[in-house]
Amino acid sequence: MNVLVINCGSSSLKYQVINSDTEEVLAKGLCERIGLDGRLVYQKAGCEKEITDADMPTHKQAIQLVLDALVNQKTGALNSLEEIGAVGHRMVHGGEKFACSTVLNEEVLKVVEECSDLAPLHNPANLIGVRACQELMPGVPMVGVFDTAFHQTMPEKAYLYGIDYDYYEKYRVRKYGFHGTSHSYVSKRAAEIIGKPYEELKTIVCHLGNGASICAVKNGKSIDTSMGLTPLEGLIMGTRSGDIDPGAMEYLAKKENLDLEGVMTILNKKSGVQGLSHISSDFRDLEAAAAKNDQGGIRALETYIYRVAKYVGSYAAAMNGVDVICFTAGVGENGPDTRKGVCDYLGYLGVELDDEANQVRGEEKVISTPNSKVTVLCLPTNEELAIARETVELTRK
Amino acid sequence: MNVLVINCGSSSLKYQVINSDTEEVLAKGLCERIGLDGRLVYQKAGCEKEITDADMPTHKQAIQLVLDALVNQKTGALNSLEEIGAVGHRMVHGGEKFACSTVLNEEVLKVVEECSDLAPLHNPANLIGVRACQELMPGVPMVGVFDTAFHQTMPEKAYLYGIDYDYYEKYRVRKYGFHGTSHSYVSKRAAEIIGKPYEELKTIVCHLGNGASICAVKNGKSIDTSMGLTPLEGLIMGTRSGDIDPGAMEYLAKKENLDLEGVMTILNKKSGVQGLSHISSDFRDLEAAAAKNDQGGIRALETYIYRVAKYVGSYAAAMNGVDVICFTAGVGENGPDTRKGVCDYLGYLGVELDDEANQVRGEEKVISTPNSKVTVLCLPTNEELAIARETVELTRK
Repeated sequence: MNVLVINCGSSSLKYQVINSDTEEVLAKGLCERIGLDGRLVYQKAGCEKEITDADMPTHKQAIQLVLDALVNQKTGALNSLEEIGAVGHRMVHGGEKFACSTVLNEEVLKVVEECSDLAPLHNPANLIGVRACQELMPGVPMVGVFDTAFHQTMPEKAYLYGIDYDYYEKYRVRKYGFHGTSHSYVSKRAAEIIGKPYEELKTIVCHLGNGASICAVKNGKSIDTSMGLTPLEGLIMGTRSGDIDPGAMEYLAKKENLDLEGVMTILNKKSGVQGLSHISSDFRDLEAAAAKNDQGGIRALETYIYRVAKYVGSYAAAMNGVDVICFTAGVGENGPDTRKGVCDYLGYLGVELDDEANQVRGEEKVISTPNSKVTVLCLPTNEELAIARETVELTRK
Repeated sequence: MNVLVINCGSSSLKYQVINSDTEEVLAKGLCERIGLDGRLVYQKAGCEKEITDADMPTHKQAIQLVLDALVNQKTGALNSLEEIGAVGHRMVHGGEKFACSTVLNEEVLKVVEECSDLAPLHNPANLIGVRACQELMPGVPMVGVFDTAFHQTMPEKAYLYGIDYDYYEKYRVRKYGFHGTSHSYVSKRAAEIIGKPYEELKTIVCHLGNGASICAVKNGKSIDTSMGLTPLEGLIMGTRSGDIDPGAMEYLAKKENLDLEGVMTILNKKSGVQGLSHISSDFRDLEAAAAKNDQGGIRALETYIYRVAKYVGSYAAAMNGVDVICFTAGVGENGPDTRKGVCDYLGYLGVELDDEANQVRGEEKVISTPNSKVTVLCLPTNEELAIARETVELTRK
């Protein structure tokens, strides 16, 4: 079966068509600047990328353009849209309602809508994508794969904040976590690679991309993760601060004469390694700057790595040990220096990095030595494939 | 020499007179409800506590009452005020200006005043106490011992938040940490007890009182601690939330129609184990409730302990190992169940608790087994003694 995987944001949309039998990507691309001027990127497997400026005032029109490109006589990956057996939608916030992927019917979509105030930017955009696909591909089954679902196994002690329990009961204020599809995919794949039962491993997944989070996976279940109610908590990210003293927010608000919303804009958009370095949110730029002894670059990288290491340490405590540490996503897959920086803190756990193996970029590889007490892996994530698999599993029955 | 140790808050004041040669406490007590109705508690060593309702509209009058009590013919600990050789003041926030204790002269006091916007509740109160003592005991040397000073050895990667570096440069927004006097005292004392050089140890001090913080002390220096710019960050405390997703603050503000100040009041005063349990901020009450299977008590204790354990884990990573873990302050000294709860997570570090030894309360004792790879101690803190020692050291020259 071919699965169309859609990841729909407020003004952009990523897509892939995956043959679920061979797990090959037949075509992929994205729509950018939806509602503005519009640009379609389309790439059939084995072919060059095609970039077209195209009017796409709405998500529906954007998806129509994607579908047109997919069956385009010249470079289309499909003969007809009937070759799409199902659509898998990446959904950001499933609240406490979704502990696994779900076939999207009207009832389910209503519940997703109810979760919208937990993710006011993301969930409405996800829903627009679903609605557009429903109109353009009536009768094709749709599946929602939630970024939060994998973390629904967290125990209360991990998901509760230290605030009045009433706020949990009334408003469901708690830690949800994100990147669940990635953490689930990577932790499972790690067990396969090292040939041990997933259900018996203590794994820490470091998903280090522009957004970044860490997850403790014990016996196949997420038991803690660094993002919270929102994707702002936890690690230092590209432009997001991650953890900060709430008191520092008040102090900053007073100094800069800002309200809470103003502070949140700073923490979400003007912070992270970008803010620390005054250079870039891109680690390649930071590493280049640090190599030239630029203090901003060094400062941002050291502070970033230190926080990752501390989270790994805290999750080793949360699980009373760790067997496997995985690095994934942009920086995790392609950043030997970051991986080495983190592992340098972890000698006390018996972590022994193989410096040569660690030079790998973007490939699955064990990067610890045979003697290392903890197996360390470079392991590219594949959220689209994970979404396609879930979609097939739920629609084949 | 006798040292008067003063810890002056906005409406209360604690004091002790310590003979620095014998390190005996000659008298101690507190003034409560200063500016309101006023109450003096005074206790000479070996005698009963005396409690007197007494008008004390100002801090100066409160200190006058303390001095009167100290030389009272019947129960006074001193024959005359001339027996007080120096006064040691606990000062809360020394910003980046004070990396150690300092003799308080006009120049220094001006700098402390400049640090006041970092601790708008505490520093002004501390200064009022100093001014009152200066007036009542002219010529007696005064020393300021700062709660933040011990942590000034933290490296940049530990004290920077993931925000724009400009905010550090312009406003000194960074982690400072508190309880420094306690963390310093306890970590030094731990080295003495186990007979190893302080400069060669990796120690984690868990100061678990109504306010609570954890500190990583590597080779005699604080390299990280859980409180931040303010004492709100870090652990779950009696009524303080500790760490929380900044995004959850925005969400809560919207749901409850609050501004930032309103959210801060919730996080500072209506949160912590009190808010989680709906029972009490006192651990004895929580343990009693949990023993009766009260879900609020169990929830608060488990969530509290879990966060302590995660911080210990993160500081083991920060130091690439740990030799000694100390439990101190109210809960740390008197909470065998809390200590056991934390240590149960730490088997992977080679921590082995001696369950019998761990029954100790309020006494110095090694509570790990001889085989434990990490030495665990119950170690009562003594901030007043530490302040007295610093005071003597700086005024004897």
